[in-house]
Amino acid sequence: MTNKKEIIAGIIIIGNEVLSGRTKDLNTSTLSIWLNSLGINVYEVRVIPDIESTIVNTVNELRRKFDYVFTTGGIGPTHDDITAESISKVFNLEYGFHKEAFSILEKYYEPGQFNEGRQKMAKMPTTASLILNPSSGAPGFYVENVFCLPGVPSILKSMIGGLNNVLVGGDPILSKTLNLRTYESEIAKSLTEVQNNNKEVEIGSYPFFRQGKLGVSIVLRSIDKKKIDSCYSQILEFVKAKDIEVVEID
Amino acid sequence: MTNKKEIIAGIIIIGNEVLSGRTKDLNTSTLSIWLNSLGINVYEVRVIPDIESTIVNTVNELRRKFDYVFTTGGIGPTHDDITAESISKVFNLEYGFHKEAFSILEKYYEPGQFNEGRQKMAKMPTTASLILNPSSGAPGFYVENVFCLPGVPSILKSMIGGLNNVLVGGDPILSKTLNLRTYESEIAKSLTEVQNNNKEVEIGSYPFFRQGKLGVSIVLRSIDKKKIDSCYSQILEFVKAKDIEVVEID
Repeated sequence: MTNKKEIIAGIIIIGNEVLSGRTKDLNTSTLSIWLNSLGINVYEVRVIPDIESTIVNTVNELRRKFDYVFTTGGIGPTHDDITAESISKVFNLEYGFHKEAFSILEKYYEPGQFNEGRQKMAKMPTTASLILNPSSGAPGFYVENVFCLPGVPSILKSMIGGLNNVLVGGDPILSKTLNLRTYESEIAKSLTEVQNNNKEVEIGSYPFFRQGKLGVSIVLRSIDKKKIDSCYSQILEFVKAKDIEVVEID
Repeated sequence: MTNKKEIIAGIIIIGNEVLSGRTKDLNTSTLSIWLNSLGINVYEVRVIPDIESTIVNTVNELRRKFDYVFTTGGIGPTHDDITAESISKVFNLEYGFHKEAFSILEKYYEPGQFNEGRQKMAKMPTTASLILNPSSGAPGFYVENVFCLPGVPSILKSMIGGLNNVLVGGDPILSKTLNLRTYESEIAKSLTEVQNNNKEVEIGSYPFFRQGKLGVSIVLRSIDKKKIDSCYSQILEFVKAKDIEVVEID
């Protein structure tokens, strides 16, 4: 996973609803797949509660450790939405109405509907850059390398494309998957040898159960397509020698 | 979320497959719901890559910060399964065949099938305590307050019940949900007032979209049923006053 061009990111999922088990986090997967396509590798995800000091400390730690940090959640209108105010404290910036965000939301709602709760969504570091929201109006924002997105997966999904020209990535991280009708233990030794001979390809091995049958997915990841292909061929060699069935599952 | 009896836990999801977005983490939800039922609150989740130094550092940080730490993933037979060896380093314990685990696995497999890959699953800190695996043989283990479980959700699920008598929890964390046909911004102000008057109840507000309709779930959490009920009544009061529809969705 290491090369000189590597650009790395951390994700912070802010929300008691994930920590309590009520909600399963879907945003990590969306963000990671998108970031990989831009050549940005996600190195760490943290799920933390809606507590200001925890948000401030975690953002401060991760923004120094990674090229980019993405937060999800806590930018809505209710009392438990404290991300925008916390980010203002991280950067020691004024927290208040963001002129452009206020104007966007004012136009978005029908006359008379832009109430106090909705106005709260225009409060953030007043000098932040906005991340436009094509699906429900209220923008996200970013300050330096910290990007704040909403927690609702469909809204987050609709917003990230707007950042494609803002983020500076590396070479896209490519992946190739081989699904086998076998057990991990049957291929562990051969796979270790292939990994040792292909240090620049990350080889993951993941058991699966589908339609009542066991199998193993081998996932190869690298920025170098040739190295993935060569590694793939070496795996196919021992797969054939062991007479293991290759299955299509995706 | 603070009371004197509170027992807190951290979860470490070990696996490149979650960081790459290929796999969505389901284990946090399973572990959190189970731990809440035992009176243990999950305060932080970290998703980290299969890198030994990262695993060692993260476990060391979290085991000092929380009463309990749970890791998932990386205890299988392949080259990318390095959790057991990393945990040995965390506690400076010998990494090798665990006698009881070896014996369990030897009996589990048909004669001649207990190959090198499978034997690796018996390697761990030799003095660890085992977490039995009713679904696929290979046990998890724990050392002090660090509990190591597999990454496959169905197997993890089958194993955690075996720990009910090992963990010492607090009062079970109770929760109550009220689903409303409204917008967060409509109730934000009233909800803030109720939260201010009910500091010992954690009130979460989460927008939802189901069957094409918008709504908001209000989730109340506390160890005190009376306080939840009283808080719930106060919310119902403003809900009625605002003529907001209560909906059943679970």
